[in-house]
Amino acid sequence: MAQGLGVAVIGAGMAGKAHAAAYRVAPTLFDPVLPPIRLVSIGDANPQFGDVAARRFGYERTDACWQAIAESDDIDVVSVVVANRLHLEIVEGLLAAGKHVLCEKPLADTLASARAMADLAAGASGLARVGFTYRRTPGIAYLKELLDTGVLGRVLHVSGRYWTDYGASPQAPMSWRYQGGPGSGALADVGSHLSYVAEFLAGDLQSVSGGRLSTVIGSRPLPLAAVMGHDHVAVSDEHADVENDDYAAFSATFAGGVGAFEVSRVAAGHANSLIVEVFCENGAATFDQRRPAEIGLFLNEGPTARNGYRQVLLGPEHPYLASGLAMDAVGVGFGQNDAFAYQARAFLEEVAGVDPTAALPPCATFAEGVHNMEILAAVSESALHHGKVVSL
Amino acid sequence: MAQGLGVAVIGAGMAGKAHAAAYRVAPTLFDPVLPPIRLVSIGDANPQFGDVAARRFGYERTDACWQAIAESDDIDVVSVVVANRLHLEIVEGLLAAGKHVLCEKPLADTLASARAMADLAAGASGLARVGFTYRRTPGIAYLKELLDTGVLGRVLHVSGRYWTDYGASPQAPMSWRYQGGPGSGALADVGSHLSYVAEFLAGDLQSVSGGRLSTVIGSRPLPLAAVMGHDHVAVSDEHADVENDDYAAFSATFAGGVGAFEVSRVAAGHANSLIVEVFCENGAATFDQRRPAEIGLFLNEGPTARNGYRQVLLGPEHPYLASGLAMDAVGVGFGQNDAFAYQARAFLEEVAGVDPTAALPPCATFAEGVHNMEILAAVSESALHHGKVVSL
Amino acid sequence: MAQGLGVAVIGAGMAGKAHAAAYRVAPTLFDPVLPPIRLVSIGDANPQFGDVAARRFGYERTDACWQAIAESDDIDVVSVVVANRLHLEIVEGLLAAGKHVLCEKPLADTLASARAMADLAAGASGLARVGFTYRRTPGIAYLKELLDTGVLGRVLHVSGRYWTDYGASPQAPMSWRYQGGPGSGALADVGSHLSYVAEFLAGDLQSVSGGRLSTVIGSRPLPLAAVMGHDHVAVSDEHADVENDDYAAFSATFAGGVGAFEVSRVAAGHANSLIVEVFCENGAATFDQRRPAEIGLFLNEGPTARNGYRQVLLGPEHPYLASGLAMDAVGVGFGQNDAFAYQARAFLEEVAGVDPTAALPPCATFAEGVHNMEILAAVSESALHHGKVVSL
Amino acid sequence: MAQGLGVAVIGAGMAGKAHAAAYRVAPTLFDPVLPPIRLVSIGDANPQFGDVAARRFGYERTDACWQAIAESDDIDVVSVVVANRLHLEIVEGLLAAGKHVLCEKPLADTLASARAMADLAAGASGLARVGFTYRRTPGIAYLKELLDTGVLGRVLHVSGRYWTDYGASPQAPMSWRYQGGPGSGALADVGSHLSYVAEFLAGDLQSVSGGRLSTVIGSRPLPLAAVMGHDHVAVSDEHADVENDDYAAFSATFAGGVGAFEVSRVAAGHANSLIVEVFCENGAATFDQRRPAEIGLFLNEGPTARNGYRQVLLGPEHPYLASGLAMDAVGVGFGQNDAFAYQARAFLEEVAGVDPTAALPPCATFAEGVHNMEILAAVSESALHHGKVVSL
Repeated sequence: MAQGLGVAVIGAGMAGKAHAAAYRVAPTLFDPVLPPIRLVSIGDANPQFGDVAARRFGYERTDACWQAIAESDDIDVVSVVVANRLHLEIVEGLLAAGKHVLCEKPLADTLASARAMADLAAGASGLARVGFTYRRTPGIAYLKELLDTGVLGRVLHVSGRYWTDYGASPQAPMSWRYQGGPGSGALADVGSHLSYVAEFLAGDLQSVSGGRLSTVIGSRPLPLAAVMGHDHVAVSDEHADVENDDYAAFSATFAGGVGAFEVSRVAAGHANSLIVEVFCENGAATFDQRRPAEIGLFLNEGPTARNGYRQVLLGPEHPYLASGLAMDAVGVGFGQNDAFAYQARAFLEEVAGVDPTAALPPCATFAEGVHNMEILAAVSESALHHGKVVSL
Repeated sequence: MAQGLGVAVIGAGMAGKAHAAAYRVAPTLFDPVLPPIRLVSIGDANPQFGDVAARRFGYERTDACWQAIAESDDIDVVSVVVANRLHLEIVEGLLAAGKHVLCEKPLADTLASARAMADLAAGASGLARVGFTYRRTPGIAYLKELLDTGVLGRVLHVSGRYWTDYGASPQAPMSWRYQGGPGSGALADVGSHLSYVAEFLAGDLQSVSGGRLSTVIGSRPLPLAAVMGHDHVAVSDEHADVENDDYAAFSATFAGGVGAFEVSRVAAGHANSLIVEVFCENGAATFDQRRPAEIGLFLNEGPTARNGYRQVLLGPEHPYLASGLAMDAVGVGFGQNDAFAYQARAFLEEVAGVDPTAALPPCATFAEGVHNMEILAAVSESALHHGKVVSL
Repeated sequence: MAQGLGVAVIGAGMAGKAHAAAYRVAPTLFDPVLPPIRLVSIGDANPQFGDVAARRFGYERTDACWQAIAESDDIDVVSVVVANRLHLEIVEGLLAAGKHVLCEKPLADTLASARAMADLAAGASGLARVGFTYRRTPGIAYLKELLDTGVLGRVLHVSGRYWTDYGASPQAPMSWRYQGGPGSGALADVGSHLSYVAEFLAGDLQSVSGGRLSTVIGSRPLPLAAVMGHDHVAVSDEHADVENDDYAAFSATFAGGVGAFEVSRVAAGHANSLIVEVFCENGAATFDQRRPAEIGLFLNEGPTARNGYRQVLLGPEHPYLASGLAMDAVGVGFGQNDAFAYQARAFLEEVAGVDPTAALPPCATFAEGVHNMEILAAVSESALHHGKVVSL
Repeated sequence: MAQGLGVAVIGAGMAGKAHAAAYRVAPTLFDPVLPPIRLVSIGDANPQFGDVAARRFGYERTDACWQAIAESDDIDVVSVVVANRLHLEIVEGLLAAGKHVLCEKPLADTLASARAMADLAAGASGLARVGFTYRRTPGIAYLKELLDTGVLGRVLHVSGRYWTDYGASPQAPMSWRYQGGPGSGALADVGSHLSYVAEFLAGDLQSVSGGRLSTVIGSRPLPLAAVMGHDHVAVSDEHADVENDDYAAFSATFAGGVGAFEVSRVAAGHANSLIVEVFCENGAATFDQRRPAEIGLFLNEGPTARNGYRQVLLGPEHPYLASGLAMDAVGVGFGQNDAFAYQARAFLEEVAGVDPTAALPPCATFAEGVHNMEILAAVSESALHHGKVVSL
């Protein structure tokens, strides 16, 4: 570590590139300077993808297998950004080699694998953290601050929705996304983020009920070409049945309130809309991912005739933005790439053992990653049993 | 009826006044002129209330009991706008006397009473209708038109919320609203409207599940003076327990889609926010009572880069507004008093047996009123049985 | 007047019908009951139009010429709602006959005629008032209340726009609207409302400068059929030149602030958008006709991090809505037909000499009508002299 | 240049840090990889500021005077981000030394200095560019694309406002911002951006008229401590007169349309709101800096009843976002730091002589910087001559 912490990213897809860029930006955030880091390797089974990403983001090399990274003495810190079903094997290898690991969410493809990973983490010398980036979203973070400091008072109820539209067209071609068991559809895809945010704000989730998993577009045309991401390729006249959930709903009891939640992959007009409303004793607050640079805030104070929801534009007095980016004036804007950079910074600070930047809470542990998967499993169980209450 | 249909309103509270004003305005809506009507009586147990309303809205007299109205030969049409527990007795008397009855929703205080009223209606010579005014809201009506004409395509899922805040402050004094059995709180209060609108849009509701009834503010201070409406009178140090639901949630299966719904009386900042989103195969549409003069509309057409939710301002090309009010240009605005007038017009047209105005669907029957109460009863039953599915 | 004030409306077009309906509703607004009124006559040169309106709104008869109304002993109060160029002759006749006159804005087609009318009004026994309905718009009225009560502090600057789109398409056919001298286009059409609202809020307008009148669509196709209102009839290949202003801009100095204003008839997507922003020492407020049931309000108070523009939903604590309509709860909504009713009520109260309803300021005088036309004339003069300052 | 282009930034304030960070990120944007660059020096008269910034953003050293940078053989590219009055001297020195210069806007403190700089640029071997970052704002860039590709048709009129509130409180202390000649206040501060954006969209500005410069808060309290930025330090009872414009307005004629514009530094509730509306023959579009991740779009197509302004969320199909940032999905967000990175990238591409990235137009020339200052000078001249037309 004489030359600084060596960093690698496994996976050169879009999220992998976000991790790769984030490590490059992380040292420039906030004033206290991090210990030096070296951008060493981007691993990808497709050497061309890895090579392009390495050159673009300034990494020294690319590796074609994760084992090469696990074995490298010049690498200390590794982001794992590959298919969920590969997480267990790779993370096990990296932790065994003493690396510090930041694994993308969800922690694994099955709850059993996730629990195995948490066990490994408990015994590992390196740190094991999971990447829930929504705690790095300034609006969500400010809602939490308003709750933690008592401005809003006790939480009464929470309402959340995560609408996406990648499957909204009945002509969107069949793909692996539409196959799998109950809960492997919209619930797994975006319910993970929504339940994470709900619990981040409202405290420990104790039980769910009213689980509902619905397939509302029963079959989809077979594609005539390979489907990359959410692309709408040409389709054939043949159809196959959709196996998992287009839509899911559930309600929940938290430490200090209740709430109801919906997710969808067939919500026309919504690319990526996480929406959350928190109702409390002293007021209420809302966040809508479509307008990420603001929150809605209502406070029970002053004359009723003049009161109403406020559009609070996020700026240098709000979490992450204060002294975070180079330019930090009001209205300066921010994005998910910045959120990944904040995450990388928090991880590097914890790895380096430096005093954490006050504004920057640490990354979630593997235990938290398991817990998040348990919530989704409970929703599926409730749905399979016609809405019954499932405790966590 | 030589001098026209005689009209009476029983109840001179706020909603009663809305009915009284509506009969006065109804003949002026749309071009075909109604048969003549006479504004005869406003009944109220408090003669002073009845007298003021009669003078203000131009009714000939006031009556201090409903029996006097039932016995009057010069009255043909009666709106019943009194406490729900009085509906059965009064409607029974009016129907027995051959009157045409427009009863405010919900139809009764208990499902048994509502069913008895529907039986009476089936055997009565006069019409028996229930006042669901939301079908008279131009935005809701336009959503239905978009669905009925196929513009939006098949419904996939529906999401609805009805937020109110009259109990949002823990200092709001104890009153009858906070007393009663499960489902008699927020669910009865505003869930009736929300479930009506959902079914109006998405078709027959077949089952509910995941019912949840939550009391999130457990006790309230006793008032030191009589509580009128939602007034926040001075309170004592003593508290009493809240018995019924501050918040309710459920999900539902409709003829052609699914959905999830929430209602609250403790949602800070929301006086009266009915919000509904309909997601369909060809697009999606939303209505928000806070901005009643517009809907949100997304259509799956044209280049993605230019697409997005449209703010459609309601005007003369939309239901009710076209040739309805005297001034009917775009941006002319409208309100719930107008909705009551449309309702009175539809009721009078049906009573008079004239060709109905095309734009004006008839009022809901008592059978529909019973069905709406059955939905809420099913939600309460689901809640009592930990979220189970309850078929209708 | 034994049987009550006799009311007539001259003109049975859309605005005439709004006046006709308004007199019918006026007595029902607010609690103190008006002296009795009789709805006597609707005058229109087209007897069929007059007849339909009389039957629809419950007037006793129709008259085919204004002289018949002037000569009727049973008529005390007359609204004049016809082409501007006819105002002088009709109002002169009505005032000579001792009637009370409510004349639609603008007061006349020329400043000279308007001044002559103001002279006639000064010597008349009857009241002469002009119908600026925007002071009856609850949002505008609340902005004024916030200014008058000192909540917002001294006005610094005002910004206003009135966008309409009836000429937005280059294919909108040539009509009389596109003919006439400088300032007879968009400026006369909607600038009248905008300047009225600006002065209502910011106090006496002292001078204008930077007048600009622009014809941005130089020619329009000739219609192949008569153009009614803003209809887009079939057009020929032949075009004629547009003579007057599609767009106008000016800035102004008020008693206590400055401001800039724009109007357009070619603003795509805006049917009827009057938008005004008032910036003051203690905060700021905005009104947008597209969302008439709310205002935007910013107050310089409390922590900056929590502050922002509030969406204040108008309800029973705001002007006109408090105890005005039958149903007056929050979120009940309202429209321009209601504004006409408030105006009719204020006029009838002044005619009857009763104590005015506190919430209901009197109608504007003819002198105010002249002043409003002088402002627009000053804008045109500034435009003709390349933007120079013109004092009022 | 064997080891890559050497980069320096002169000025370590907030904007200087944005430039410093931007050079670090620039190579990672878009797929084609830039020639190598070296981050060499951050210059600042305050060595501590320079040192912190150099360490934070990974520059090799700091220099305490610009001459050291001009003389360094290892520096090829220099951003100048210091007080406007220093631009001429420093840029002259850098160009004489053969450096490529990116100078922050406005080009200089006086028009004469700006013209001198343009003359120097014309004879220099290095590139001379000025940093108008608003062309890097995805929403503004998409408006331009909609205009350039004919989707919106010919521009009819443009409306723009730039509201800021740093002087909104009458208690904001006196500072250098409130001193200087006509036009040196709000007009110079934010009018530069607004007029740049207007011309970027509507084409060459040919003349202005109706210039208005208003001081609406006449005096301000003297500060009791040094004022940094817009800080509200403690103030004394003594006041001094404000010398320059709190508010400015003007209208303009462009190559193909007209428009009106306002700027303010006393607009309560607006930290930094650049708002622009473009009205065209086929539709209209709007941008509002408060919601930077979307534009408003109206297109004259399809049935009127379903039409309205669309909220187009910016994503990978829109300028700069497509393949720009590491993560480039819809709803990923972005900010002004990203805009600086795009600008740095465009400048480096031009310096390196590589094929420019298609999505990335070059930076503005010094001639454009002079022209922008001439527009503001014309507004001031119009204001001094009571609103007269001033041609450019």
